[in-house]
Amino acid sequence: MPIEQARRFMEAALDLAREAAAAGEVPVGALVVKDGAIIGRGANRPIAGHDPTAHAEIMAMREAATHLGTDRLTGCDLWVTLEPCAMCAGAIAHARIARLYYGASDPKGGAVEHGPRLFEQPTIHHRPEVYGGICEDEAAELLKAFFGARR
Amino acid sequence: MPIEQARRFMEAALDLAREAAAAGEVPVGALVVKDGAIIGRGANRPIAGHDPTAHAEIMAMREAATHLGTDRLTGCDLWVTLEPCAMCAGAIAHARIARLYYGASDPKGGAVEHGPRLFEQPTIHHRPEVYGGICEDEAAELLKAFFGARR
Repeated sequence: MPIEQARRFMEAALDLAREAAAAGEVPVGALVVKDGAIIGRGANRPIAGHDPTAHAEIMAMREAATHLGTDRLTGCDLWVTLEPCAMCAGAIAHARIARLYYGASDPKGGAVEHGPRLFEQPTIHHRPEVYGGICEDEAAELLKAFFGARR
Repeated sequence: MPIEQARRFMEAALDLAREAAAAGEVPVGALVVKDGAIIGRGANRPIAGHDPTAHAEIMAMREAATHLGTDRLTGCDLWVTLEPCAMCAGAIAHARIARLYYGASDPKGGAVEHGPRLFEQPTIHHRPEVYGGICEDEAAELLKAFFGARR
């Protein structure tokens, strides 16, 4: 993928993360792309949504699945500003996401390159291609500013 | 907890699993209990719901969180007929479920006593008390009959 296109999708995810921050939620944004078109968007909103599962990735994948009328997001890419947690990585496997692109690493809560490293588990039933570190500084800065302001 | 009360909750979860089977979904049922009252119910329905995240546990926890008007299910118990997968175990941790009661073990897809053993990971931010093997035979038989009929 050309670098400019990659930046464009991650910038759109970062805009969703900023929306989350403005609403007082941890700033994470995600989108699902199929054939170059955005078919699902998610801004993290567990607090406002009264929903412990309302992470950006889950919201984006649910919207995309509704759009496609199926529970399988075959051939779809997920773009997210932060390394997915175990819940979201598990959902990515269930959804059969083809490629995962993420921004900042998450040593504390991430489950892709940290903790359980879910896609490296022998029992995982689907492994997406994984590309981390896209617009990493911007994504990390958003989170740092958010948590800094709350201290 | 008296054994009769435990059976009663798991029987209610098994009824939800039977509902899932009747709808052509993998038969798993779940409920969330707070102070002895059922406040969330879930029957597995990813196919009908066009939602890769629509596992019984997720449905039950979302309903309970809506009911309580918060994203934290503090002091709540989750009853589910099958060992939770990584997605659901991650959601259980996010929701701060106090006690997890499950029926059949799932060596292929389970993430509690199998695979990533999520609650034993150093990075997990919440660990529920875990009780497995409740009405195990009934729960396993339902799944066996379902997959047997599809072969």
